[in-house]
Amino acid sequence: MEQVKLTIDAERLQARLLALGEVGALAGGGVSRLALTEADKQGRDLVLSWMQQLGLTISIDAIGNVVATLAGREDLPTVMMGSHIDTVSTAGLYDGNLGVLAGLEVIETLIESGIQPRHPVAVAFFTNEEGSRFAPDMMGSGVYTQALDLATSLATIGIDGKSVEQELNAIGYKGDAPVCDVAKQVAAYFELHVEQGPVLDEENIDIGVVEGVQGISWSEYTVHGTSNHAGTTPMNYRQDAGLVAAKVMTFVNQLALSMAPQQHATVGALELQPNLVNVIPNFARFTVDLRNCSEQKLLEAEAELAAYLEQLAEQHGVSIEKRVLARFQPVDFNPRLIDSIENFAKDSGLSSKRMFSGAGHDAQMFAPLCPTTMIFVPSKDGISHNINEYTSPEQVANGANVLLQAVLNIAEY
Amino acid sequence: MEQVKLTIDAERLQARLLALGEVGALAGGGVSRLALTEADKQGRDLVLSWMQQLGLTISIDAIGNVVATLAGREDLPTVMMGSHIDTVSTAGLYDGNLGVLAGLEVIETLIESGIQPRHPVAVAFFTNEEGSRFAPDMMGSGVYTQALDLATSLATIGIDGKSVEQELNAIGYKGDAPVCDVAKQVAAYFELHVEQGPVLDEENIDIGVVEGVQGISWSEYTVHGTSNHAGTTPMNYRQDAGLVAAKVMTFVNQLALSMAPQQHATVGALELQPNLVNVIPNFARFTVDLRNCSEQKLLEAEAELAAYLEQLAEQHGVSIEKRVLARFQPVDFNPRLIDSIENFAKDSGLSSKRMFSGAGHDAQMFAPLCPTTMIFVPSKDGISHNINEYTSPEQVANGANVLLQAVLNIAEY
Repeated sequence: MEQVKLTIDAERLQARLLALGEVGALAGGGVSRLALTEADKQGRDLVLSWMQQLGLTISIDAIGNVVATLAGREDLPTVMMGSHIDTVSTAGLYDGNLGVLAGLEVIETLIESGIQPRHPVAVAFFTNEEGSRFAPDMMGSGVYTQALDLATSLATIGIDGKSVEQELNAIGYKGDAPVCDVAKQVAAYFELHVEQGPVLDEENIDIGVVEGVQGISWSEYTVHGTSNHAGTTPMNYRQDAGLVAAKVMTFVNQLALSMAPQQHATVGALELQPNLVNVIPNFARFTVDLRNCSEQKLLEAEAELAAYLEQLAEQHGVSIEKRVLARFQPVDFNPRLIDSIENFAKDSGLSSKRMFSGAGHDAQMFAPLCPTTMIFVPSKDGISHNINEYTSPEQVANGANVLLQAVLNIAEY
Repeated sequence: MEQVKLTIDAERLQARLLALGEVGALAGGGVSRLALTEADKQGRDLVLSWMQQLGLTISIDAIGNVVATLAGREDLPTVMMGSHIDTVSTAGLYDGNLGVLAGLEVIETLIESGIQPRHPVAVAFFTNEEGSRFAPDMMGSGVYTQALDLATSLATIGIDGKSVEQELNAIGYKGDAPVCDVAKQVAAYFELHVEQGPVLDEENIDIGVVEGVQGISWSEYTVHGTSNHAGTTPMNYRQDAGLVAAKVMTFVNQLALSMAPQQHATVGALELQPNLVNVIPNFARFTVDLRNCSEQKLLEAEAELAAYLEQLAEQHGVSIEKRVLARFQPVDFNPRLIDSIENFAKDSGLSSKRMFSGAGHDAQMFAPLCPTTMIFVPSKDGISHNINEYTSPEQVANGANVLLQAVLNIAEY
C-alpha cells in the first residue's frame, strides 16, 4: 500500500513547467513553439537534458519522437506516459507540456523513493501533435503507432513550405530508434492533460476521467471564382470566391449550433486573392475543423457540408476543391483504466467527472493497440490555445498524483 | 467641318496599348503595375518618352501627376484629356491606359494634320487612381483638383508599409510643377475609358455616354475576439472574429441584392489571426466597398451596415473598429458635353447609350470645377480588374475618334 501514500514533488513539477514555458516565450505572455522550429528544438533539448539527468534510457525515432525509459525489475511491456511539447503559435504553458513533465515527475518520484516497478516505466514526447505547422496533427504518435506512414509524414510540407524531414534534420531530431510494436511492447498508455474546455473549471471539479476522444475531420477548401471590378459588376453576375467562403463559414457555424452540444465547427484559416479592397476575389482557401464524439454524427455533418458546397458551387458558378487534412474517428478508452483513475481520485479525496475529450490527443493513437486512458485537470475559464491558458499548481499536482498512482498500480500489476 | 472627318491612327494607338501592356506583364497575361512601384516607373518612363517625342510641354507635380500640353493659338484655358496608368495587381491592358494613350493619339493626330486649336490641348496621367496600394484611390487627381491635401496624401502608408512620398522619390516622379487652378486653367476635361461592366458588350453598343459616377464608400473593419481551442470551446461560448467577418460579408451581399441594381457591395480583402486550422480566430480585418449613384441610398446602406455591426458586436462579444479608407459622393457630368458626345457618336454612325459609371474615375474629381464628361467603350463580358479584360481594336478606335471630335470641338469653341 506504500505506493498509495507516495506523492510527487509539486514544486519541482511547477518549476519545470515554468522553465519550459520560457522557451519560445511570447512578449505578452504564453509561448510559441511550432513543431520542429528552433524554439521546438530548444524545448526538446531542455526536456531531454532532464531525462538524461535521471539516467533514463533515451530513444529517438525517425519522426523525432523521444522516449525515456526507467528499467523494470522484469522484462515486461512498458507502462508509458506521454504527450507533446510542440505548441500552437499563441499557446499557454500547459497544453502537452503538463503530460510530459508530469510523466517525468512520476519517474523521478519512483527513483527517489527507491521503487523499481516490475514493468519498465517510460515518458515520451511525440512530434507535431498540434498540427499547426504540419497537417495532420498527432503526427508523431500516429507514426509511433503505425497509424500513419513514416515516408508520407516525413514528406509533409508545412505552412512555410518546408518539409518535416528537412526540419527534423535541421534541428537534429531525426533519430534511428527501431519501430515500436505498441501492441506487444506497451502495457498501458496514460496521458495527463489540461481539459482545454470549461466544464471542470465551471463545476469546480478536480479530475476529469476521460472516457474517450471525439472524432476530428479537418479539410481545406479552395474556391476558384472570377476576379472583377467591385464597382461595376452587377451583384448577380459575380463569381465571388470570398463570398462563397463566407457562406461556408456561417453555414458550418449554424450546422454546429443545430447539432449542439456534441458538434463543434470552426473555420480557423482563410486566404483571399487578390485580396484588394476594390477587386472581387477570384480565389479563396479556407479550412474547416469538424468534431463530434459520435462517428455517425460526424459523418452526417460532413455530408451536410458537402451537399451545401455542391449547391454553392452551382449557385455562384465557382469551382470548389476539397483536400482532407486529417480525419480521426472517435476513440473509446479502456474501461478498466477509466475505473482505476476514478478510484484513485476518490482515494485521494479529489472530486472527479467522467467526460469525453473535445480535443485530439496522442493517447487516441494508442487506444486501438493497448489499454489507454487520460486524466484531465481544469483549465481556467476553459481557455486554451491561448496565452491566458492556466491551471493552478495545486490542480497540476492533483493530476500528477493520480497519474503516479495509476501508473504504479499497472507497473506492479 | 474638316475636323469631323479627321480620324486617329487606330494601328498606332493599338501598338502603344500593347507596348505599355508589356511593362509589368504577368506570366499568364495581363499586367501588374501597382502605383509607384518599379513597374509603374517603367510604364511612366515609356509614356513620358512618347509625350516628349511629340514635343509637348511636360509638367510633373508634387504627387507625380504628369501633364503634356500642346500649345493653343491663343492663351486660353486648356482642354484636358486624362486617366491613369497605374493598375491593380491582376489587371488588363485597357483600364486607365486607354484614356491616356487615346489622349496622346488625339494630340498626335492634331499635330500630324497641322491643326493648332485655339485652346491648348493636354493629356495627363494621374498618380494612384486604383488605390490598390495606397488608399484612397484617385489620389493624384484628388490632389490636382485640391480635393485632397497634398501633405496628407504624401504621408499615406501603403499595404507594404511604404509612404507615397518615399516611393515617389524612389521612382523619381516627385515633380515641382505649380498647383493648378482647375476652375480657371482647365476649359474642359474628357476621359475615355473601358466600361468595366457588361452593359455595352451585352447590348452590342459602341459608345457609352457617361452621365456621372456613382458614389463610393470604402471602409476597413477590425474585429477583436478571443482565440481558443477549436475542439473544446462550446459553440455558444465563442468570440470568433472570423465568423463575425463572414457574417458581415454575407450581410453586405444580401444588402446589395435587396437594393439592386443600383447598390454594389464587395468584401475584397480579409485577414484572420492566428489563421490556424484548429484555433478560433481572435482577429479579423476586412474591407467593405459600397457604391451607389444615389447619395441618399449610399447613406442608407452605410447606416444599415453600421447597425448590423453594432448588433454583431453585442451578439458575439467582440469589439469592432471602423476606419474610413475613402468616401466620394456621386458625381453628375456636364449636360452640354454629354450631349456633344452623344451627337458625335451619332454623326460617326456609332450606336450609343447613356449610363452611369459604376467605377470611380479621375474625371469625377474635375466635375465640380470644370465641364467634364467621359466616354465608355465596351469591355468583353464586362470583365475588368482581371487579366482577361478586353476591348477590340475597332471599339478602341471608335472611342478615340469620338474623343478627338469632342475635344477639337471644345478646343476650337
